[in-house]
Amino acid sequence: MKIGIINVTWYAGIELARILYRHPEAEVVSVTGRSQAGEELGNALPHLSRMDITIEPEITRSVDIVFSALPQVASAEACVPFARDGVRVVDISADFRLHDPAEYALWYGAEHPAPDLLETSVYGLTELDRDGISSAQLVANPGCYPTAALLALAPVVEKGLISDQVVVDCKSGVSGAGRGLSMTTHFSEVNENVFAYSVGGHRHLPEITQELRRIKDGYAPRVLFQPHLIPMTRGILDTIYADFVDGAFASAEEASASVTELYREYYRDEPFVKVTDKPPQTKQTWGNNDCLVYPTVDRHTRKLVVFSALDNLVKGAAGQAVQNMNLMFGLPEATGLEQLAIYP
Amino acid sequence: MKIGIINVTWYAGIELARILYRHPEAEVVSVTGRSQAGEELGNALPHLSRMDITIEPEITRSVDIVFSALPQVASAEACVPFARDGVRVVDISADFRLHDPAEYALWYGAEHPAPDLLETSVYGLTELDRDGISSAQLVANPGCYPTAALLALAPVVEKGLISDQVVVDCKSGVSGAGRGLSMTTHFSEVNENVFAYSVGGHRHLPEITQELRRIKDGYAPRVLFQPHLIPMTRGILDTIYADFVDGAFASAEEASASVTELYREYYRDEPFVKVTDKPPQTKQTWGNNDCLVYPTVDRHTRKLVVFSALDNLVKGAAGQAVQNMNLMFGLPEATGLEQLAIYP
Amino acid sequence: MKIGIINVTWYAGIELARILYRHPEAEVVSVTGRSQAGEELGNALPHLSRMDITIEPEITRSVDIVFSALPQVASAEACVPFARDGVRVVDISADFRLHDPAEYALWYGAEHPAPDLLETSVYGLTELDRDGISSAQLVANPGCYPTAALLALAPVVEKGLISDQVVVDCKSGVSGAGRGLSMTTHFSEVNENVFAYSVGGHRHLPEITQELRRIKDGYAPRVLFQPHLIPMTRGILDTIYADFVDGAFASAEEASASVTELYREYYRDEPFVKVTDKPPQTKQTWGNNDCLVYPTVDRHTRKLVVFSALDNLVKGAAGQAVQNMNLMFGLPEATGLEQLAIYP
Amino acid sequence: MKIGIINVTWYAGIELARILYRHPEAEVVSVTGRSQAGEELGNALPHLSRMDITIEPEITRSVDIVFSALPQVASAEACVPFARDGVRVVDISADFRLHDPAEYALWYGAEHPAPDLLETSVYGLTELDRDGISSAQLVANPGCYPTAALLALAPVVEKGLISDQVVVDCKSGVSGAGRGLSMTTHFSEVNENVFAYSVGGHRHLPEITQELRRIKDGYAPRVLFQPHLIPMTRGILDTIYADFVDGAFASAEEASASVTELYREYYRDEPFVKVTDKPPQTKQTWGNNDCLVYPTVDRHTRKLVVFSALDNLVKGAAGQAVQNMNLMFGLPEATGLEQLAIYP
Repeated sequence: MKIGIINVTWYAGIELARILYRHPEAEVVSVTGRSQAGEELGNALPHLSRMDITIEPEITRSVDIVFSALPQVASAEACVPFARDGVRVVDISADFRLHDPAEYALWYGAEHPAPDLLETSVYGLTELDRDGISSAQLVANPGCYPTAALLALAPVVEKGLISDQVVVDCKSGVSGAGRGLSMTTHFSEVNENVFAYSVGGHRHLPEITQELRRIKDGYAPRVLFQPHLIPMTRGILDTIYADFVDGAFASAEEASASVTELYREYYRDEPFVKVTDKPPQTKQTWGNNDCLVYPTVDRHTRKLVVFSALDNLVKGAAGQAVQNMNLMFGLPEATGLEQLAIYP
Repeated sequence: MKIGIINVTWYAGIELARILYRHPEAEVVSVTGRSQAGEELGNALPHLSRMDITIEPEITRSVDIVFSALPQVASAEACVPFARDGVRVVDISADFRLHDPAEYALWYGAEHPAPDLLETSVYGLTELDRDGISSAQLVANPGCYPTAALLALAPVVEKGLISDQVVVDCKSGVSGAGRGLSMTTHFSEVNENVFAYSVGGHRHLPEITQELRRIKDGYAPRVLFQPHLIPMTRGILDTIYADFVDGAFASAEEASASVTELYREYYRDEPFVKVTDKPPQTKQTWGNNDCLVYPTVDRHTRKLVVFSALDNLVKGAAGQAVQNMNLMFGLPEATGLEQLAIYP
Repeated sequence: MKIGIINVTWYAGIELARILYRHPEAEVVSVTGRSQAGEELGNALPHLSRMDITIEPEITRSVDIVFSALPQVASAEACVPFARDGVRVVDISADFRLHDPAEYALWYGAEHPAPDLLETSVYGLTELDRDGISSAQLVANPGCYPTAALLALAPVVEKGLISDQVVVDCKSGVSGAGRGLSMTTHFSEVNENVFAYSVGGHRHLPEITQELRRIKDGYAPRVLFQPHLIPMTRGILDTIYADFVDGAFASAEEASASVTELYREYYRDEPFVKVTDKPPQTKQTWGNNDCLVYPTVDRHTRKLVVFSALDNLVKGAAGQAVQNMNLMFGLPEATGLEQLAIYP
Repeated sequence: MKIGIINVTWYAGIELARILYRHPEAEVVSVTGRSQAGEELGNALPHLSRMDITIEPEITRSVDIVFSALPQVASAEACVPFARDGVRVVDISADFRLHDPAEYALWYGAEHPAPDLLETSVYGLTELDRDGISSAQLVANPGCYPTAALLALAPVVEKGLISDQVVVDCKSGVSGAGRGLSMTTHFSEVNENVFAYSVGGHRHLPEITQELRRIKDGYAPRVLFQPHLIPMTRGILDTIYADFVDGAFASAEEASASVTELYREYYRDEPFVKVTDKPPQTKQTWGNNDCLVYPTVDRHTRKLVVFSALDNLVKGAAGQAVQNMNLMFGLPEATGLEQLAIYP
């Protein structure tokens, strides 16, 4: 399988290169980068020096699949020609996630360059749509926050157990903001600091809402999604608060036992979603493709509280992209993704 | 004013010593520490070397006020003799915060050694009970999380604007866990990591509930309080989600304007509570006594979301203790607490 | 005393504002900033919101002293008009530190705009030149690394005890690189990382060499100065390796005792230089103006090893600038600088 | 190959388990841990939950090789029975590194329990003694600092190019101090802090000296080895300063070119030692087995300065242990160690 990576020098691209280098069925044959075109990849990124490849301005060689790690808008423009040309595409940006062009324009402040592709692109949350992804021409790889939130909520939403009011309180490491320079990613400003951002609405909100609706017909959630930046490089922890629908359970104890059982059953055969016995720690997923989910019922308020942890650059980006690629090409889903988390 | 500090070698005690060293009306005349008794304070803690004082096993000199920075249970035992002796006491531990001995026994796993003092001790959240604190013999200094949560909720609770369902999602630096060694405060385990703890119930929960009830007669909140540990030393950020009572406001816009105005009015003359225009950052309070509060109304869900940030060792512990001492001795409340936050 | 701060929005300027706000004899009457002119200072930097002042494009009001926190070259241009106008100036940049214009051009890649002022400017390492600073029109505030290195070496250099070979291995927090955005100050690149930079020659090298020569006539040191960036915000630790001249001491034991005594004597009455009993930690100086110096003699190699720690933004920048201002205006040197370090 | 890991719950043991889980020729059949015996490994260490194995008090099953991740002294006691029994052993502790029992007693404060084995144990710095390691019964895996220092110095020492005076200034992440709780590994004490430790002599010093002597007959180095603790989890950077012997090179330029060429040649075919073009960053080795070496000649002082970076838990501990195991069993040396560093 010949692979192209667009914008290999951003974090999702860097991580794709790392993972694919060890993938037994994949060969990265072309990588692009904007400011560093012409440079050896191993010069720009010394930890990738074992990969003997030069950064190019454009994907020039024939490839079976293209991954794009460009930021939104630019990514759509880069992906469209490949998609129209019959090359399979996994777009790690947000450009093909929202199926409604108006919604896209509203949240991303730009007209979508290929609204027809929004109809056929497949939202690539692997565990929730294996059939769609397998046959997709263009996969929209999910955002890191939505991946954690949707995996945390899917079991109870599908069963119709929770009301429409959902609070998703997220804590993210700084690499989620990408490699672009800004005051809020400047070390001295973010170290020894925590704060909320995108108060009033983050772009991952419509994505979460759209996909929750797809999990259960007629479910119309009202999600309050609030991200926070914390001083670490990798990792996302979502803490999700929801109310059970009336009559769902007779008592908090019953709810607790049933919910745990439901999650265990739902994710029984999943290679990368683990239902844990204790609150998950992001460090337990550092560098690997797991999403750790821990559902609980608060005995004081009877609310459902679900914790969900993952590495935003792996299951939240490049790892899931490779997981999707494996599905698209009929490979065992975990191929190239077997690495354990690195702890501590 | 002659001052004694019990357990000066723990973080709240260290911070008290730092603040009181510059307090123009205070003289620290006796400090105790368990394992380091006999040592010069400046040897045990070099940044305090300008204080020429030796750590003792017990407070031996006559003092006007004693601060205790011991852990719970031990603190009550150390404070009781002083309180009974007519020395004024500020206990930074949790031992005199809950007025109900049964509740204390439930959450702290020990019978209270002086239940009679639970009736007369005053909960020392300065802004909410200046009269009580001024004349108190024994002040129970609030926990760091409750200080942030109560200041964030007081205006809307007092006005009866929110329902009984309140979610308090907290992010805390590691110094909140104290100076005691444990695997969850071991650098390599907590660095580059985030996780929830005390899932199912944290000891600050009954304290928050008790004090919310006092703010408004008849208010019976059901609080879900969930703390998280994040890789930084100081700082707490509380993110609080609540629903307005039916009919409180006609629209999200109206709610937003009214709530902001309400908070500004409520804290207009406060020296240490600032209602901010933007989401507060804990780093903006690093080393000083401010609590930054930012109320918002989410336009998608119409929920009230309040952010509240402070330095857990200052406004969340030693700073508020000094603020209370100032009140108790008729000094201007900000005396010794004028230092700005250190940024970055 | 009316004070102007040029470029208050960079770290040294921010720190100056914080310190001067509490200085009993100083009033900050005008502050400038490039991109944020017109904004309230408290809006740009919320921790300074108690200062009721607007950022201006230029210093417009009459002032007794101007501090410049601009980067080099720009700083000289901004300072010269004030200096020529008889306003006293403390330049925190490197622009007036090197007295030789050719050396300046070599290291800073620009012709100096006012070489005549290089002759009269005074290098402001307070402890080493109080007379010069007191009467100076224009003080060149030292770099953070040179401050730590020169204070660590002055006693033995003045006594002629060490040879000309000196290795200065430095570890610095990231705020030393300023507030300008760059890949090496991007959180995810520098967190959980350590590396050397400016290999082959850092701009602080000629400054160290120039001033060591001034300490002792005829001393011609060959300094190898190697800085490293470490993942923290504030703090510098210099580890300095030197050889004693032949015959300086009969044994390592004698050297050790003599050197400790020499340092204690040399810095006996200094308010801000502390000779410590144990290896100093940068955290013991966090936010205050101390420089901690710990001289030792290695018993295996008989080398002198001196450790020197300070807060790069205080004693390494704004704090020393205020210390110099105090001297220039005949105030007690520690005025406004009494704050203890904040630990932890 | 059946493998036992003694003390799997300490960092080197944790890392061994992670690496060996993916090793195609290895099967971990028995793991021990002191306080957690009886627990599932995946319960004690959730990131290892894919390994279906229970922590035992002792290695009970028959194994081909035993790794010990115990602390010194305890490790020797645990390893000796296996070594005497004909089981091959890689001891990650320091217990079999010093060949002189008197030296061991001096530095470790205990009589060695099996001094005869000190004569036959092989120091396992893979690149420097492949023959010895291949046939060794008992391999003493090197310390993290010595690995970095010896690889940085071997080429010039072997060629006799440097004098006996060598300064090794090291910066280490906190995981090098192990998983044992202490005040200097307590998050709030070490975060935002840097300091020197083991001033006057660290236990890795005799190990470095012993092995440098072995590299070249007659070389009698006087090493000043000074470690520093910095606020990160993993990674070691050694900065090494040495003088060339008289007449080694005619000029700094010639020295620089020759030295670079010498290092490139020396490590030309090494899978895990990379001679870099730029100062190495520890983050470029995060989680993998590389040691990055960058030799330079300072043009001002003509000193040799070598930078050397590695992950203290991989090439500095568990990775090198597996590399040695591969040699001992005739496997390709890189087996199981192909993972790239994870960046950022």
